[in-house]
Amino acid sequence: MSDPQVFLDAALDALGPRGLTLDPDLITPWLTDWRGRYTGAALAMASPASTQELAALVRLCAEHNVPIVPQGGNSGMVGGATPDAQGKSLLLSMRRMNTIGDFDVAARKVTCGAGVVLQTLHEAAERHGLRFPLTLGGKGSATVGGLIATNAGGTQVLRHGSMGALVLGLEAVLADGRVFSMLKPLKKDNRGFDLKQLLIGSEGTLGIVTAATLKLVPVVAERMVIWAGVPSASVARQLLLHCEDAVGQALEGFEIMPHLSIEAVKEHAPSLRPPLAQSHAWHVLIEIVAGQGASEPPAERGAAMLEDAFEKGLLEDAAIAANEAQADGFWLIRDTVPAAERARGPAVQHDISVPVEDMPGFIDAAVPALESAWPGTEAIAFGHLGDGNVHFHVIAPQGSDGVSWQAGDGKAISRQVHDLVTAWNGSISAEHGIGQLKRDELARLGDPVALEMMRQVKRALDPQGLLNPGKLI
Amino acid sequence: MSDPQVFLDAALDALGPRGLTLDPDLITPWLTDWRGRYTGAALAMASPASTQELAALVRLCAEHNVPIVPQGGNSGMVGGATPDAQGKSLLLSMRRMNTIGDFDVAARKVTCGAGVVLQTLHEAAERHGLRFPLTLGGKGSATVGGLIATNAGGTQVLRHGSMGALVLGLEAVLADGRVFSMLKPLKKDNRGFDLKQLLIGSEGTLGIVTAATLKLVPVVAERMVIWAGVPSASVARQLLLHCEDAVGQALEGFEIMPHLSIEAVKEHAPSLRPPLAQSHAWHVLIEIVAGQGASEPPAERGAAMLEDAFEKGLLEDAAIAANEAQADGFWLIRDTVPAAERARGPAVQHDISVPVEDMPGFIDAAVPALESAWPGTEAIAFGHLGDGNVHFHVIAPQGSDGVSWQAGDGKAISRQVHDLVTAWNGSISAEHGIGQLKRDELARLGDPVALEMMRQVKRALDPQGLLNPGKLI
Repeated sequence: MSDPQVFLDAALDALGPRGLTLDPDLITPWLTDWRGRYTGAALAMASPASTQELAALVRLCAEHNVPIVPQGGNSGMVGGATPDAQGKSLLLSMRRMNTIGDFDVAARKVTCGAGVVLQTLHEAAERHGLRFPLTLGGKGSATVGGLIATNAGGTQVLRHGSMGALVLGLEAVLADGRVFSMLKPLKKDNRGFDLKQLLIGSEGTLGIVTAATLKLVPVVAERMVIWAGVPSASVARQLLLHCEDAVGQALEGFEIMPHLSIEAVKEHAPSLRPPLAQSHAWHVLIEIVAGQGASEPPAERGAAMLEDAFEKGLLEDAAIAANEAQADGFWLIRDTVPAAERARGPAVQHDISVPVEDMPGFIDAAVPALESAWPGTEAIAFGHLGDGNVHFHVIAPQGSDGVSWQAGDGKAISRQVHDLVTAWNGSISAEHGIGQLKRDELARLGDPVALEMMRQVKRALDPQGLLNPGKLI
Repeated sequence: MSDPQVFLDAALDALGPRGLTLDPDLITPWLTDWRGRYTGAALAMASPASTQELAALVRLCAEHNVPIVPQGGNSGMVGGATPDAQGKSLLLSMRRMNTIGDFDVAARKVTCGAGVVLQTLHEAAERHGLRFPLTLGGKGSATVGGLIATNAGGTQVLRHGSMGALVLGLEAVLADGRVFSMLKPLKKDNRGFDLKQLLIGSEGTLGIVTAATLKLVPVVAERMVIWAGVPSASVARQLLLHCEDAVGQALEGFEIMPHLSIEAVKEHAPSLRPPLAQSHAWHVLIEIVAGQGASEPPAERGAAMLEDAFEKGLLEDAAIAANEAQADGFWLIRDTVPAAERARGPAVQHDISVPVEDMPGFIDAAVPALESAWPGTEAIAFGHLGDGNVHFHVIAPQGSDGVSWQAGDGKAISRQVHDLVTAWNGSISAEHGIGQLKRDELARLGDPVALEMMRQVKRALDPQGLLNPGKLI
């Protein structure tokens, strides 16, 4: 890097006072990731207001060799938006680029800036009778750009796919300041390989997403939310297949939670009452919505499906939410699982996937393997069974000191979980990305050919290595 | 290239006599593309039997600097599998790598070699009560590898997507002989950007697809096939939206043909009788299938949908196929359109897309623009309205000499069509790819930033430029 002051003066010229700050009070809150694992330092924080401003800024960074760490809502799970401690990087806030364009109601799409917050998008879409079908815990802060950069998942992937499947068009600033612009969506376009897909999930290492044209779906007119108790993960999987056969595309959610998760919720939030009176080894939350073009209401289809499932022995017990408030209550229990587990004590968390059909076998093998290798720990797998993706958490033995346990046994446990996942042909990151948290594990366990391909593409598109250095690869 | 004989001896050692031939009688039929536009020459034709053999061969090619032109069924539309005339390239037949693995009926997937012919895959899937939902005219020769390399489309894209959407896992040999292997499908995997997507549609320029794990769907239990007459492309689009609203995912096909296409079919194949007695400006072929999880049979849903469409004035007339034979007959008329047009005389053909909602406007503008600029020509747009993709053919004035017309006026017409498409934010290749046919047009009209990104990726993954040189970029 040349003299930082020369760069900062030029950047201030390009962005104006609202677009660049050196004030530690304004910058510090964004230098620690929201899970509190990483704290970095930055030369300054830039907040460009437009693609053109960002492009000019990136050209300056290239000229002065200043690394750039893009950040949306700072709600990522893997430290992907936190700079390193050297203080030589520019922290790039995308939050000012938060314009939502006109909704195209007939074509069900909207173009919006990378800084648009997910919940804001949800609310804007609803006002047009539409829905953006991706949601997750951090929706109040997560931005469109961050969701694209991490190819985020959530609880509606089963039907609608991850973020990448909802991106129809994309705009991004590349490492040398050129603008890649493909915001006008074409359903079919075979002019070479799909560059849009290259940027999705690249965690800001190949380009900085500035805007996207997103797919929307009709609002849910009616839904049926079911809470079921089942004896095993394997039966839960059979129940999933049964639901898919019975209602097809109308199946919007299928989440599993073990007994221990429900106990943790009861302890943590006594006001939340699990719907089933008896105890079950596994709990399943199912949502069926009125499908587009379906003439039968979801309640009728769901009731017939449940009856069938009982007859086939795929359920021990089930409760149907009687109204919207109760349905929200069912989901609240599911959404409280992570917090309830955190309250139980320190833990190491893994966002993993295996081939969908292998997930019950994986859970049945991995939970006892971990618990017996690490006496006193509790292993919990919960989440998106239909996607072959669970959050696999291992809770420290009672009385452990969080920091030292996580740095010692916790690290070894994570390696064991990742080894197991790899042996089952799975992924050590199903929906959170790699960031800095899993970079070494990816280097250790990833396919060497795939890793080298990613590095080759990275070097080709960012030869100076200025885009989000130290992340992913 | 070093001494070709040294390379050929080494290749013969690696592949054995069945794997390498220099016999012109065996090679010549594969040196001309099936549309007869391009004829090339080759050093030899290699036919490896396995990924390992191919990897060894590619290492030899890298060592001896021998360019490789991969070829599947040689049924591509853009000369993408035809070598240049220099005779220094190795023609690589993938046709021996045609093993179909075990069908995973529960998970609805199958892994097969790149050389498997599409029709063979269709038939094998059917024997397992499953369906591979992509079909096109060249199905009797097109291979899985070629379909992936070109991200092929067809008449079922509306519901099931292009080839890329059906690829769950992929294996490929890279330019230096390393094997990229991701055949085990994961529904969610965020270990960096999607390398699989990079190879799909790359026309053999980034890697040679050797095998794929493909998505299957249930066989169609029942279908309803409708032939409708409508007054304009714009009404056809309204009818499409009406169908989507009424039957959603059950809508599997929606093809449009202008009056002139039907007249051409009648002339070319008098035994085929169009279903409607009266003449209509546009004809629409609609297929509705029994959707997974749908309780109502397609015939009932389709009949209600049609009745509604009549009431709304979206149809002038319609016929419903009374049985499977008649349904096949309706499709045969559609499938005969290209041959009937070829029989009318020389033409230039364009495989184009614009944003779906803009297609009627594009057709209404482009057809008269071309016909008035080139007196005596007839412009015809037919095909996949639901994908925003039509085949836009301009037929030469009667009595034109094919070869000279195509090289002269035909070229100028193609440029005009491509200019128009570009002005409408469309693509000059919707489903056929770029190959050698459209390479110059892509260079002329493509987004310079996107083109440079593709070249950067190409140079990174194939620094010697040995994979399918002269194609795409």
